[in-house]
Amino acid sequence: MKPVNVGLCGLGTVGRGTLSVMQRNMQDINRRSGRPVRITHVGARRDNPSCDLTGIKVSRDIFEVARDPEVDVVVELIGGYEPAKQLVLEAIAHGKHVVTANKALIAVHGNELFRAAEEKGVKIAYEASVAGGIPIIKALREGLVANDIQWLAGIINGTGNFILTEMKEKGRSFDDVLAEAQALGYAEADPTFDVEGIDAAHKLTILASIAFGIPLQFDRVYTEGISKITQADVQFAEELGYRIKHLGLARKSRQGVELRVHPTLIPEKRLIANVNGVLNAVLVEGDAVGPTMYYGRGAGSEPTASAVIADIVDVARSIGADNGVPHLGFSDFSTNIDVLDMGEVETCYYLRISAQDKIGVMANIAQIVSRHNINIEAIIQKEPRDNEDTVPLILLTHKVIEKNVVAAIQEIEGLAEVTVPVTRIRMERLDG
Amino acid sequence: MKPVNVGLCGLGTVGRGTLSVMQRNMQDINRRSGRPVRITHVGARRDNPSCDLTGIKVSRDIFEVARDPEVDVVVELIGGYEPAKQLVLEAIAHGKHVVTANKALIAVHGNELFRAAEEKGVKIAYEASVAGGIPIIKALREGLVANDIQWLAGIINGTGNFILTEMKEKGRSFDDVLAEAQALGYAEADPTFDVEGIDAAHKLTILASIAFGIPLQFDRVYTEGISKITQADVQFAEELGYRIKHLGLARKSRQGVELRVHPTLIPEKRLIANVNGVLNAVLVEGDAVGPTMYYGRGAGSEPTASAVIADIVDVARSIGADNGVPHLGFSDFSTNIDVLDMGEVETCYYLRISAQDKIGVMANIAQIVSRHNINIEAIIQKEPRDNEDTVPLILLTHKVIEKNVVAAIQEIEGLAEVTVPVTRIRMERLDG
Repeated sequence: MKPVNVGLCGLGTVGRGTLSVMQRNMQDINRRSGRPVRITHVGARRDNPSCDLTGIKVSRDIFEVARDPEVDVVVELIGGYEPAKQLVLEAIAHGKHVVTANKALIAVHGNELFRAAEEKGVKIAYEASVAGGIPIIKALREGLVANDIQWLAGIINGTGNFILTEMKEKGRSFDDVLAEAQALGYAEADPTFDVEGIDAAHKLTILASIAFGIPLQFDRVYTEGISKITQADVQFAEELGYRIKHLGLARKSRQGVELRVHPTLIPEKRLIANVNGVLNAVLVEGDAVGPTMYYGRGAGSEPTASAVIADIVDVARSIGADNGVPHLGFSDFSTNIDVLDMGEVETCYYLRISAQDKIGVMANIAQIVSRHNINIEAIIQKEPRDNEDTVPLILLTHKVIEKNVVAAIQEIEGLAEVTVPVTRIRMERLDG
Repeated sequence: MKPVNVGLCGLGTVGRGTLSVMQRNMQDINRRSGRPVRITHVGARRDNPSCDLTGIKVSRDIFEVARDPEVDVVVELIGGYEPAKQLVLEAIAHGKHVVTANKALIAVHGNELFRAAEEKGVKIAYEASVAGGIPIIKALREGLVANDIQWLAGIINGTGNFILTEMKEKGRSFDDVLAEAQALGYAEADPTFDVEGIDAAHKLTILASIAFGIPLQFDRVYTEGISKITQADVQFAEELGYRIKHLGLARKSRQGVELRVHPTLIPEKRLIANVNGVLNAVLVEGDAVGPTMYYGRGAGSEPTASAVIADIVDVARSIGADNGVPHLGFSDFSTNIDVLDMGEVETCYYLRISAQDKIGVMANIAQIVSRHNINIEAIIQKEPRDNEDTVPLILLTHKVIEKNVVAAIQEIEGLAEVTVPVTRIRMERLDG
């Protein structure tokens, strides 16, 4: 059968990995594709001395790859919004399929790009954009098609999970571990995308669209990072039988769809609570299949390359199909499901209140909580720590609407005996 | 687009689930397929009162479904070798695609059936045959195509995992838990397929073929069940930081491919060691992606239906493709990889020896072990139990060729002080 010619744009970490895995496993990849798949053209502003480009045409201008008449599939591995978006549009305009690992591009411009691809009858594949080498897009978009997906919850940022794991296992502070993660190259010099949850929100946007058949709506994701998690909260969570994980959560209820990224207490018995270090995992609850989980390396040169190459082979295998897999899993969007405002979301809460150790404080707090229809599952009052005249008071709530909790916190913070802000971390059972 | 008409054969547990999920989620399934997918013909020897067959043609003779000119896809859910095999061949002869959940049929007759399908240009899809609703076939055959798969290890029999979990968590005996599993309907009246590992061997055969590009070779799988696992071993394993799980293992080495199903000690820290109850999980190690794991319900009406319907939609989406996904992942078999005899397999071992508490016994055993080139990682000698004049002696070995261990055990059992057979359980680190 006619070979599939691949044009690769970008020779950074993932580009290098893609080239190297393609070259190393070429024979088996071709046996699996059923036709030869080969990189014929590379576009990169500069050479990468660790790449073997023998027999491959090289262009300094990536747009030459998109215009190369010999190329069937353009692989975009340059990252960022521009010129990545122009490159993808140019490739589509020239009738080429596109493979990308660019989560930001898909989450923010995906609706427009997919429309352009559909008009031209080409595919944009983006498995590598979420959870690196874990085939989670494929699982959701193909493996679980029978299901009405109820919810999904993912550890989808390796840097954040590394930081929380180190804080829990070694008792270290957030700042200390972040500095190490930066030194190890896990976190960028500007760690905002990782620790403030933006990277996870990009990925959650994509997963939720596929799960629920809704358009990509990155600007509707509630996003909260892990930079305010303290060692005290990590320890209290552990005492209570929970772990704190930074989760991307998408849930469908009668009221609408919840899209949220935030630190979350989850029961330590859950398998996903034991996913540690830079590893990623996504737990998906379908009405027919029940819970399923997908685990592996969510970043890195070769894990990401694994997903990029799987997409290339998918394109090669589906050439000629009347129909194929829709870009976001559904052939049309559901227009009757709204994204809920965070205030309307119902979940459980961990509240840590530092109060002066005076008679009546507890009663005041209990009254406020009860006035806002918040049912308490557990209360723990700790001894004052050395040198402190306040006692930490931990409340675990039953399910309640977020805006009620926000209002209660505001009142609690207004009490004379409460002098520091209340810590609020959401809590999920993840049990169906 | 033209609808896809499905003929469903068998209205048992999985047939009922398939019908019910198709009916419940019809609208979304059609939005995902991009064309209507509908069950038009059911073949079943008798009615199932919990099935709504309104508007569906019903035949008592399943072969009428295979010959129905209106049917595009025949779903075989009757199980067993015959008449399932004849039904599949008849469907293929009539140019229909086939979806099956029948692991025994695929493991034993798959090579022949796939050949027949390829000659007719139709597909046989069998996601439901391994690990129920977990899309593990799809992950291996499509999601991980870039990888040279090093090994995979799966908890792929829910009944076996339920029994081992109960033994560990509640200190119960094998026979006791098995009786309960039978009462609960998890285990068949004849539990041999589950507890002696035959069911797991069927599934491992399929996974190994896809992972390594080798023909299905069920008769080459080394198969050992869990019926000899005692409460003592479960407890010793726990003390040593391990869990006993019944694993299907496939590994590629320079010498050949290992295909084996047996109880296995694995470090309790591994995520897969914490997969409990009837749940399934498969851990796959690829050279590019590293470790990935897939977890969920491996059996049951709707979890299995989830995989059956995913296959139907896959068929609907791939109609017209020049090429598609090869049945076993590779377009041709590798003929130069042999399956190793179990005696040639290299792994670690847990040996439990009951020896009379006499001077010199330990020295004798140590000499035997050393003569067979077995390096010991740990030795534990326990106090004699009440009413027993023997002491349990636990040896954990480093990696060694199985035939050396077999020879050493034979000699140890020949010692006058050793009056009961040595218990031998293999041990795997599963760390890459």
